[in-house]
Amino acid sequence: MTPFKLTDELLEDIKALIAEQKNSELQTMMSEFHYADIAEIADELDVEEATYLIKLLDSEKTSDILAEMHEDIREAVLGNLTAKEIASELEELDTDDAADIINELPKEIIQEVISEIEDREHAKHIVDLLRYDEDTAGGLMAKELVKVNENWNVLTCVKEMRAQAENVTRVHSIYVVDDEGRLKGRLSLKDLLTTSTKTNIKDVYIPKVDSVNVNENAEEVAKIMSKYDLEAIPVVDEIGRLVGRITIDDIVDVIREEADKDYQMAAGISREVEADDSVWEITRARLPWLLIGTFGGLGAASIITGFSPLMNDYRILLSFVPLVQATAGNVGVQSSAIMVQGLANDTVKGEVASRLVKEFLIGLTNGGAIASIVLLVSHFIFNTPYLVSFTIGVAIILVIIVAAIIGTFIPVFLDKRGIDPAIATGPFITTSNDIFGILIYFTIAKLILGV
Amino acid sequence: MTPFKLTDELLEDIKALIAEQKNSELQTMMSEFHYADIAEIADELDVEEATYLIKLLDSEKTSDILAEMHEDIREAVLGNLTAKEIASELEELDTDDAADIINELPKEIIQEVISEIEDREHAKHIVDLLRYDEDTAGGLMAKELVKVNENWNVLTCVKEMRAQAENVTRVHSIYVVDDEGRLKGRLSLKDLLTTSTKTNIKDVYIPKVDSVNVNENAEEVAKIMSKYDLEAIPVVDEIGRLVGRITIDDIVDVIREEADKDYQMAAGISREVEADDSVWEITRARLPWLLIGTFGGLGAASIITGFSPLMNDYRILLSFVPLVQATAGNVGVQSSAIMVQGLANDTVKGEVASRLVKEFLIGLTNGGAIASIVLLVSHFIFNTPYLVSFTIGVAIILVIIVAAIIGTFIPVFLDKRGIDPAIATGPFITTSNDIFGILIYFTIAKLILGV
Repeated sequence: MTPFKLTDELLEDIKALIAEQKNSELQTMMSEFHYADIAEIADELDVEEATYLIKLLDSEKTSDILAEMHEDIREAVLGNLTAKEIASELEELDTDDAADIINELPKEIIQEVISEIEDREHAKHIVDLLRYDEDTAGGLMAKELVKVNENWNVLTCVKEMRAQAENVTRVHSIYVVDDEGRLKGRLSLKDLLTTSTKTNIKDVYIPKVDSVNVNENAEEVAKIMSKYDLEAIPVVDEIGRLVGRITIDDIVDVIREEADKDYQMAAGISREVEADDSVWEITRARLPWLLIGTFGGLGAASIITGFSPLMNDYRILLSFVPLVQATAGNVGVQSSAIMVQGLANDTVKGEVASRLVKEFLIGLTNGGAIASIVLLVSHFIFNTPYLVSFTIGVAIILVIIVAAIIGTFIPVFLDKRGIDPAIATGPFITTSNDIFGILIYFTIAKLILGV
Repeated sequence: MTPFKLTDELLEDIKALIAEQKNSELQTMMSEFHYADIAEIADELDVEEATYLIKLLDSEKTSDILAEMHEDIREAVLGNLTAKEIASELEELDTDDAADIINELPKEIIQEVISEIEDREHAKHIVDLLRYDEDTAGGLMAKELVKVNENWNVLTCVKEMRAQAENVTRVHSIYVVDDEGRLKGRLSLKDLLTTSTKTNIKDVYIPKVDSVNVNENAEEVAKIMSKYDLEAIPVVDEIGRLVGRITIDDIVDVIREEADKDYQMAAGISREVEADDSVWEITRARLPWLLIGTFGGLGAASIITGFSPLMNDYRILLSFVPLVQATAGNVGVQSSAIMVQGLANDTVKGEVASRLVKEFLIGLTNGGAIASIVLLVSHFIFNTPYLVSFTIGVAIILVIIVAAIIGTFIPVFLDKRGIDPAIATGPFITTSNDIFGILIYFTIAKLILGV
């Protein structure tokens, strides 16, 4: 089974087929492809071509294609469909994907689209899901699941299962509920297959089942599913009633998106952007942090001008400003990255005091190594007087220690106040380290060289 | 089902029970906990306490606990067990987890442990898996799977399945192979349940099944499983024979580890470290990049001293060095982060030339905004002569444009040469931007102010 590869050639062929409206050839070709691959193709077509393709293929496939497509082009394609056409796509989708897509539609047509959905049960489920914040378990879950009443026997179970399982793509566990709909436990398909049909469910089901509350945040759900190696987790409401199910494929997407978001935040990009977004969108996402960095730099500039007398006599100190600043910045970023990850993975243990000592030692060790190199280069290559080289070395050690400590404790501080520590990394840390770095550097210089 | 929370109180209780050797109480308590939670507890105990716990509980549970434990403490605990005891743990594990654990053992005892494994079939499987690189499909896969021959009928299938499925924890699909063991297709449990028993497998199995080659790299496998929403994927060798299976829970771990690794690389940490590693380990991981940054800073220092005449007459230029450097660094990091993510997610399309133009425009827009602010502050707050302020502004715009272009194209350049572009971010980019930034700044100053 050779993996699908969207070559320029293939794309050209498809575009040509669409332009020439060779429908049966297109349909034959697309019937060979997985919907995720057709979505990849659609992402590369322009809006008219993509719309043409979606209208050509039948709803059962196109609904999955639409769910996998990149949201920008999906939005554009849906803009070309009538409310009725959109509704028939949603008809075919699992409730979680349907709810996600409806959420992207312009407010004005949501009501109309919902009213066009023929399966009113399905419509009702979608509407229920719309109520939840997208970053919670409720926003991730789907209504499709298989549940049986604890008072039934295995035979009734299997019959019910066959009926319900038609709509459920992945059946891992069959959830057991009581008469009020509260989650009591689960059964595996394996168990059902291997237990005699007259047995009562009450006697065989597993009363222990991990579940999440409908208000739990998405990242926490991802952690739980990852920790317990779950492939699906039932979602319960405040009363304990089974209201939905989250499957691992959605969690994999959550994990990947979280990772991308953290990576971007570390680089000081304040909104989610992609390489192919417009110049305006990218600029808008990048400018805020750059401005913060700019004001930090202006702060550093005023500090330097404030030390003018020192500058006159020891101009060599200024040559090393980039070094001091770069080092403070790098050390700060490293310290905060380690701490942010530690906080995210819950692997940070131990007392604050011992951590302080640890960062001090790390700063001292790294600082010692770097300061030695700088001292040697400064003295032997730049022919700087020994005292000045020594001053630069001492200042660097101190700057590194302070940067390491600041970089470690800002994330901890933010985390304790309920702010996402990932915001701490990037330009915020480098900016504050710039200012502190310059300040410490020149203050040490003033103290030792005495001007 | 209240989620498990390891409170200090609970930990103290457990430590006390271990110290007092209250075995039956410990066993009762642990029987309530999921193995992943006991692993979390074990990570907090010291080596003797953890070893005590592992020896106390029975192998079926402890094997899973060991597999979930943090590798440092697992290594220490295994160091306290005999080869026979280790072998009996491995006996209970799935082959992929067993192989991972064996790989961590000191070379000298691996042979002995393997010889102590009673189930020779199991031992054979583990040895087969040891052959593969851990970053490939072969290194991720397990031998546990359910397969049936295409020539059987449904009745035989179900019988075989019941026999094989005893050892397989998650049965999603039953793989169909030919007489040579080559993968031909798959059957779902749902299909088996709902098809008449006399039907021939040949007539009902799905001949299309996604698979990966045993040498495929782990990140690629993660992408495929994520794209096609798979929960398990069969692994085939060069001849097409079914040799193993990868389940989604292992891929979730791969995705999280990759994300952590990329995040750390972006901060210039060259090895995987955690907040609780020793001072020496952390220093060793952080120093390489800091040294690169140091040499970059020294390069900048020599550039500045080279422009001495300019410094004498326009000392204010030096005050803005941190600003120029910080801005160049931030812009470079942002550009490269976006590009690195785009390359990792395969969302980068379009010609190189149009990307160049785009980065130029982004640099111009951001640069224009920042330069304007700097110009105003420089002129009105620092009372710098208009020409000099203008020079600084122009230099900043140019520095930003160059930093954006460098930041965008270094990852592309590395990627085209097969090097992981994630290495490009962090101190490497900031260092090269420092040098270019300072060079451009002073060169522009020299050109305009003419000294």
